This record gives sequence, structure tokens and C-alpha cells, in this order.
Amino acid sequence: MSELKNDRFLRALLKEPVDKTPVWIMRQAGRYLPEYRATRARAGSFMDLCENPELACEVTLQPLQRFDLDAAILFSDILTIPDAMGLGLYFSEGEGPRFKHPVTSAAQVAALGVPDPEESLRYVMDAVRTIRRELDGRVPLIGFSGSPWTLATYMVEGGSSKDFGKVKGMLYSDPTTLHLLLAKLAESVTHYLNAQIRAGAQAVMIFDTWGGSLAPQAYRDYSLNYMSQIIEGLQREAQGRKVPVVLFTKGGAQWLENMAETGCDALGLDWTINIGEARQRVGDKVALQGNMDPCVLYSDPETIRTQVQQIIRDFGEGSGHVFNLGHGIHQHIDPENVKVLVDAVHEFS
Amino acid sequence: MSELKNDRFLRALLKEPVDKTPVWIMRQAGRYLPEYRATRARAGSFMDLCENPELACEVTLQPLQRFDLDAAILFSDILTIPDAMGLGLYFSEGEGPRFKHPVTSAAQVAALGVPDPEESLRYVMDAVRTIRRELDGRVPLIGFSGSPWTLATYMVEGGSSKDFGKVKGMLYSDPTTLHLLLAKLAESVTHYLNAQIRAGAQAVMIFDTWGGSLAPQAYRDYSLNYMSQIIEGLQREAQGRKVPVVLFTKGGAQWLENMAETGCDALGLDWTINIGEARQRVGDKVALQGNMDPCVLYSDPETIRTQVQQIIRDFGEGSGHVFNLGHGIHQHIDPENVKVLVDAVHEFS
Repeated sequence: MSELKNDRFLRALLKEPVDKTPVWIMRQAGRYLPEYRATRARAGSFMDLCENPELACEVTLQPLQRFDLDAAILFSDILTIPDAMGLGLYFSEGEGPRFKHPVTSAAQVAALGVPDPEESLRYVMDAVRTIRRELDGRVPLIGFSGSPWTLATYMVEGGSSKDFGKVKGMLYSDPTTLHLLLAKLAESVTHYLNAQIRAGAQAVMIFDTWGGSLAPQAYRDYSLNYMSQIIEGLQREAQGRKVPVVLFTKGGAQWLENMAETGCDALGLDWTINIGEARQRVGDKVALQGNMDPCVLYSDPETIRTQVQQIIRDFGEGSGHVFNLGHGIHQHIDPENVKVLVDAVHEFS
Repeated sequence: MSELKNDRFLRALLKEPVDKTPVWIMRQAGRYLPEYRATRARAGSFMDLCENPELACEVTLQPLQRFDLDAAILFSDILTIPDAMGLGLYFSEGEGPRFKHPVTSAAQVAALGVPDPEESLRYVMDAVRTIRRELDGRVPLIGFSGSPWTLATYMVEGGSSKDFGKVKGMLYSDPTTLHLLLAKLAESVTHYLNAQIRAGAQAVMIFDTWGGSLAPQAYRDYSLNYMSQIIEGLQREAQGRKVPVVLFTKGGAQWLENMAETGCDALGLDWTINIGEARQRVGDKVALQGNMDPCVLYSDPETIRTQVQQIIRDFGEGSGHVFNLGHGIHQHIDPENVKVLVDAVHEFS
């Protein structure tokens, strides 16, 4: 494969010196870009787009043509694993992801298999390989997965949830079944991320979107514990380079010290914590990725520049910062404002 | 008015000695109770129920007939103030609260008045007076309001929101207008809570349901700042007794130290923090209310009892704890499990 021309992102995740703070945007390939909407319309459904390696590659690269980003992220969905387990993922208008066959009983959990990523998830690996070829070493490619707890919430609830009554009902009334489900998911995610690394992912990120909905001990037992197991099982080097691992629990700012002990290289931060304070708390253990409120992008260029500068100042001197939003970019954001953000990160660092 | 027979709740909020830990449940008068659903069906719409003092009193008292609760809370909605400002509150099936006339421009904010609580909100004061009469001193009555920031989110978004794009867009692009809106709301909430206290509320609680969606500095500037102003303006004594103030920011566990500096008597905690850790952080400054995950109530009596006992142990010795859930009770909870919780609090403390 081609030599990497811009390795700022990988270097910052490993706290090696960088010339400028690297930047990428969660959900950078997405609906806020008209060119994405055009490709999506050609593809058919959202899953048709995810399952087509050529089109997934096309949308992955679109934001790089507009913005001076320091990383690309695989275009895919976080729910590919439960889909490959046979739950029948689909998207209903306005309601987000749904499963045809939610998993609610001990027997259903016992019957679940661990998917072979080069079989039922081969379309993801093909996308990774295609993107790496087309990137041609311009910037590194990030692979990713949902966390076991986050996947379990959708699998048990049957889709998105506000209160997580069903999955937390299982947590409190039948912990054995939930632990079995999470163990199977941890094994599946480990295989899945290792396959992405073998296919060419140069860093991986675990998205624990719903870990912040848990009580502190439940977070450690039902979410963090399984993410630790995944991190232990990951292939951490590929093609002679370290493959950094980023851990992101939305709403997890209280638990950064625990997260930093998992052996990951970096923590993703949402916007509810000052990044300077986060750095003080985790010390030298990990790099930090984040953490602008995505809603700042609804404002004007001057405000965006001020907010970017403030976060860079709050982080302070030295390497170990990857600039990002604190969560995915919203669909109604003006792409021009994203350009302002990306350029400001490089200007002020 | 009758002498108060059970003042555990008021004493614990002021950290005075108590024989047992007091307990009440956020949204204790609500849809999980069949008798509530029956009254609601008789009333018509949800707002018809809120606006009828006799029926609001009836549902307020229903949970006290079933459970050994140490406080009653006024049955009302958090959006009564914006409704009284003329925004036209209504409830659409499955979508929650909506406003006919959201406030999105500087001119609309400038045109808003501060409601007189004994005029357009008189139905709330009448409910307070009726409930106090019917309670006959059995337990204290809690009055409440939404926080300015939380009210503003609904007023600008036009209803519930996932991402708060509109109101945060205003925050970042037109802070002057948002500050004007929040100042009017702070003044309105101060009048509203003082009127509730004059009508008979023996403690008041400010619900900042959406403060946790803000970045730390924005939380201090746009939510906490206005709650501090309200607390400063409150009448803190009535009928020869102190009227304690409880401040609750959902998702605000990171900011407890700041919240404790507002002059409130107690902090409401959601379930994402260990209550013992919270107590260490705020020290002697305030009492604490909380903080069981509402989803524990989906489980069995033995698990509920264990979780109650754990929270009481985590809080530790001494007064200053009011037991509660970390957020409102869910509608599908079995009332029998609420009885288990309430009895366990008194048994284990």
C-alpha cells in the first residue's frame, strides 16, 4: 500500500510531536453534504449504500475533497454486527434504525452466533480495502464499531430508545442473560475490528453512544468491562505501524479515569467537559479527541473560529490532541462552516 | 393551616436530624397509576387536568393513598409559564409538548411579557391551595418550575428536541436575544415560585431537565446563572418555617460544586453519579436528593431492595439525604414495585 503522506492524526493519538493539531469530524461523510445526498439517492436505502463498497468509498472520500481533513472514517453503520447476527436491520422514516427480530429472551441470546467478518460482514471489509486503495496514502483511514452495550441497547429495545426500559430491565432483572449477550458482542466486535485492521484500517474507534445512560457501577460492569476485553484482543500493529484505539463514551465525562485504564490510546470527549480539565484528570495516559459542541456550527465564522481557538488553548501545549466535534455533525449544518472549523484548527495550532 | 405531622422531608433538606430517610418519587402522580389514568380520562386533555384545581389535587394525593411517601408534589406541567406567555401549549400524541407559537426572533423575545402568577397562572395557585387544604398537614407539599434554560429550549425549538439545534444556534449566534429571553424567564419563574410559596408550597424544586446538554461554560452562563438569580429572589420562609430549595440539573453531575454555590439547600442527583462521591464533593454545603436509576423498578422486589440499601449505604451516616429516583418514574412500572422501594427506604434507614 502507498506510504502515508499525512500522519498527524496517528501521531497525535500516540502523543508524538505534530506540526499542527489534526482534525476530523464525526459523521463527516453525511447528510449535510449535497454530494452525499446525491450518492445516497443513487444507492437506494441507507443500508444499500453501506453494503456497496464502491459507493461507501465514494461518500467516505467526499468530505476530503472539500476540507483539509487529517483522517478519513469508513462509511458504515454501527449496527452491522447485530444485522449480521440475523436481527434484520432496517431504517424507518423518522424513527431511525429498527430490528425486525429484537432479542428479548435468554433463549434468543443463547441462539446468537458470532459473525465471521469476512463472510456476513465482507461488504465492510471490501469497503475498507477499496477506500484504502482510493485514498492512496493521503490520510489514514479510521475503522470503527459500536460498543457491546450500545449494540445491546438497540438489539433488546428493537431500535432507538429514550429510557432504555427493556435493556435496563434485563440488566437489573436478568444480568446473566445480558452478560452473555455482551460477551458475544465483545467477541464479535473484536473479530470485526481486527478484520478491519487486516483490511487496512489504520486506527479504530469504539463508539459507546449510550454508555452515559448507565449508573456508575453498571457502566463499569456492563459497558467498560466489555470494551476493555475488546481492546485487549485487538491487533495493535499493522504494516509496521501502531494502530491506535480511541474509546468514546457519550455522556461519560465523569468516568474518564476509568476509561483511560482500559489500555486505549485516546479518549473521545463529548462537549460537556472542558478539555483542559479532562487532560489534567487523565494525565499522560491517553491522548484526547474532541470536543466542540456540534451546535457551534449553526453560528457564524467568527464564533466558530473563537470556539476552536478556545478549545485549542484549553488543551494547552504539547501533542496528544485530535480536534473533533463532541458528537456527530448535524444534517442541517452549512458545509461552509465546516471549512471554517477545519481551517481554524490548522491556523490556531 | 394544619400543623405538619411528618416533616422528615423538610428536615432532611435542611440537614436537620431525622428518624428515617424521607422518600418521594419524581412524577409520583402519573401514568403508572391506574387511578391517575382514570382521572385523566375524566378530565379530558392533559392540560385540562392541570388547569382543574380539584382534579389536580385528586391526582396529587393518589400516590399518598398507596405509598408511605414523605412529600407530595404539585401536579402540574413544567411548561405553564411559556403557555401563560402566549405560546399556546398543546400535547400531540407521541410527540410530547408542542407550542403553537415558538419564539425564534429577537422581536418575538422582546414582545414577551412576564406573567402575573395570580392572573394567567391562577389555576396553579388554586391547585396549591386546594392540595394544602386536602393534605391537612399529612406531609409537606413541593412546588416546582422548569429552569429558564429548560423552558427556553421548548420555547425556541417549538417542542421537545434531540439536538437543540435552534436554541443552541441562538446561543452561539445571537447570545443577546437568548440572554433577554432567559432574563424574562428567570423573573417569571421567581414570581411563579414565590406565588406557589405564598399559596402554600413548603419546598420548591427547579427542574433543569436539559442543562446537561450544554458545554460547561455555557451551562454556567445560560442555565446556572439564571437559576442563581431565581434562588436569590425567592421567599425562603413561610408560616414560620424555612422553605428549602432543591436544584436539579439532569446530566449535571459534573457541575455539582458550581450548583452548590447558588445558595440552594439541596441538589437533585440523576443516577449517573455515586451519591457517596457526590456527598464528598459538595461537603456540608447542601443536602442531596436521589438517585436510583428509574429502570431498577422494572426488576424484582429483591433487586429493588438491594439497590435501595446500597444507595443509603453509599450516602452514609448523618442527615441530608432525601431518597428519590434519578429522574421521573416511567409509565410502565408496576405500582407494587414502588411500594417495595418506599418501604425499603424506611426499613434500611
